[in-house]
Amino acid sequence: MTEDRFERGKQALIDLNGEETAQRVLDSLADVSPKLADSLVSWGFGEIYTRPQLVPRDRQLVTLGMLTALGGCEPQLEVHVNASLNAGLTAAEIVEALLQSAAYCGFPKALNATAVAKKVFAERGLLPVSGD
Amino acid sequence: MTEDRFERGKQALIDLNGEETAQRVLDSLADVSPKLADSLVSWGFGEIYTRPQLVPRDRQLVTLGMLTALGGCEPQLEVHVNASLNAGLTAAEIVEALLQSAAYCGFPKALNATAVAKKVFAERGLLPVSGD
Amino acid sequence: MTEDRFERGKQALIDLNGEETAQRVLDSLADVSPKLADSLVSWGFGEIYTRPQLVPRDRQLVTLGMLTALGGCEPQLEVHVNASLNAGLTAAEIVEALLQSAAYCGFPKALNATAVAKKVFAERGLLPVSGD
Amino acid sequence: MTEDRFERGKQALIDLNGEETAQRVLDSLADVSPKLADSLVSWGFGEIYTRPQLVPRDRQLVTLGMLTALGGCEPQLEVHVNASLNAGLTAAEIVEALLQSAAYCGFPKALNATAVAKKVFAERGLLPVSGD
Amino acid sequence: MTEDRFERGKQALIDLNGEETAQRVLDSLADVSPKLADSLVSWGFGEIYTRPQLVPRDRQLVTLGMLTALGGCEPQLEVHVNASLNAGLTAAEIVEALLQSAAYCGFPKALNATAVAKKVFAERGLLPVSGD
Amino acid sequence: MTEDRFERGKQALIDLNGEETAQRVLDSLADVSPKLADSLVSWGFGEIYTRPQLVPRDRQLVTLGMLTALGGCEPQLEVHVNASLNAGLTAAEIVEALLQSAAYCGFPKALNATAVAKKVFAERGLLPVSGD
Repeated sequence: MTEDRFERGKQALIDLNGEETAQRVLDSLADVSPKLADSLVSWGFGEIYTRPQLVPRDRQLVTLGMLTALGGCEPQLEVHVNASLNAGLTAAEIVEALLQSAAYCGFPKALNATAVAKKVFAERGLLPVSGD
Repeated sequence: MTEDRFERGKQALIDLNGEETAQRVLDSLADVSPKLADSLVSWGFGEIYTRPQLVPRDRQLVTLGMLTALGGCEPQLEVHVNASLNAGLTAAEIVEALLQSAAYCGFPKALNATAVAKKVFAERGLLPVSGD
Repeated sequence: MTEDRFERGKQALIDLNGEETAQRVLDSLADVSPKLADSLVSWGFGEIYTRPQLVPRDRQLVTLGMLTALGGCEPQLEVHVNASLNAGLTAAEIVEALLQSAAYCGFPKALNATAVAKKVFAERGLLPVSGD
Repeated sequence: MTEDRFERGKQALIDLNGEETAQRVLDSLADVSPKLADSLVSWGFGEIYTRPQLVPRDRQLVTLGMLTALGGCEPQLEVHVNASLNAGLTAAEIVEALLQSAAYCGFPKALNATAVAKKVFAERGLLPVSGD
Repeated sequence: MTEDRFERGKQALIDLNGEETAQRVLDSLADVSPKLADSLVSWGFGEIYTRPQLVPRDRQLVTLGMLTALGGCEPQLEVHVNASLNAGLTAAEIVEALLQSAAYCGFPKALNATAVAKKVFAERGLLPVSGD
Repeated sequence: MTEDRFERGKQALIDLNGEETAQRVLDSLADVSPKLADSLVSWGFGEIYTRPQLVPRDRQLVTLGMLTALGGCEPQLEVHVNASLNAGLTAAEIVEALLQSAAYCGFPKALNATAVAKKVFAERGLLPVSGD
């Protein structure tokens, strides 16, 4: 049962972020906090993320909002901008979500998040973003 | 032109929150910070919210995430849980977005936000939420 | 197995907060987000809190620091000041932890947290606190 | 020497907030965390606030910005809106500082802070604010 | 009219930050989120910052407080320490504002902000700061 | 008297962080904000940290919680993971405190803090951490 949760969560993590990123996250925790890796995978992904009540694309919209508002989560935001694209959000939709964050979180956090998104878009050949 | 922005924004605010809530927000600022009301309506709603790059339902998902993560924004969250329902999100989808916030913002903020949502759902006769 | 986690977590929640508070938390979520209640109990308490690597008293010290720093978590802080006393921290030690938070989070958050602690101490007949 | 710091700080606290508010703050901490009261007065006011490098009016501008950005500090903000008026800022200048916070912290925190300011202005007969 | 706002805002941005920094901010957004750049310039600077109710120097004091309290806004703080000097604040006054932030936001954020200020002061030949 | 506070605080800072780190902190502030250094040492360490009401090990548990929750305090967290080890917490206990932070602050902040801890553990030859 526990293993089921882990396997289901790991598959969801791979589906969303790709095998390489998923493995990198797990490997980085293996020698310091394996239970944190297990919690992220088994609970965060296996129990929560994979629930059918909200599709992955919609979950990423919520997550983009949360990570921008929290601040100081640039590494996680980079992973989730990639995940957002993988889940079917367009670059223009991601940019629009971060634009909206200027109204709710202020310009500094919106600018920080947009800089992270730009970096990801550049790596994936998605610049310029044609949102307007 | 400026007036256009204001009128367009005010209509969007009414469409989303209803005439009464929209008017209450504007009235509460009229004698203290009319420019803040104008900025909220003309820029926040007239220029940003009404852009077609993201539909209202999707914008609410981002906003639920931001308000939960910011913390201390219970009054705004109450307005936006109502707005989320008005924009087409189901109570179960809202609950799911806040459940996901437990993984990104921790239980305390998720619990605070869920308590606000419960209050709104109770007022609108949407309890119990059948998400599972 | 899942049930084991839940039962173990619920027992830990009761041991820490008393049956009444534990039940009140679960009841408040039952009709809106039962999965949030389950996650809090099964994962938060059943999987994390009950790990032997840190005793309950030490966990409360970490938690007092987190809730004070997050801000806007007064309801949770009230539960955890009670839990801290139940786990063996003295009122003077709790006060000292919150005093230290002035240096790391600033006076406003330290004052808010200390006001919550004072309310709990008053209810439990622990005033005045003789820390000095 | 320590007593000097305390006396100097207490006088500054009284000059800024009035005798009643100053005494209320100290009294509320007397039976729970007298060292927090002493730190606030002796260090916060006696050592920092009374330095001549920044005049009280300017210090309040910084503080209005900090309390708005932190969020969840409405009780402290209420004290400091009063203190800001006592230090020579006009209601229109305070409103303008909070308007600017919309651009840096987002509308929710700006609205929360403006609501606190409005409450104080109402108590002191300063409504409507004629800022425009 | 809209163009007026943009031109007025751009001129304010240049007056405050210099042509090079202003252009760098706009260029960095051009291919990813031109509307965010437009909002920052037209609304943030053209509509809010240029209001006469608060002089630029006073606005910088509020902003230094907000950016320090938000945390994780070191890039924006660097721009605004420069802007603060350009708006007439002395290095000693900036240092004093950040010293005060220790009392309201805690030492970690005050230390982070002071490190940013030191970097800017070094670049502009303003070290040592003679505040005492 | 003031000097006593400073000397006592400096000794505590050295005892906790080692002479080199303590001197580096003081030196970095000497030419920009000597009063911030003095406040950190004389008040933060000399007056607060050295109080006997809570032992150093317990204070570090509170501090690990606060720094993780605040976010954006990676430099301070690095100093305090070292300090935590120096104060008698084991690597496994530190990891456990940060694991618990996932439940209260969310995964992103827990992951950021754990990455800092891993860096310190690597420097001190404490990997792998055998917590389970």
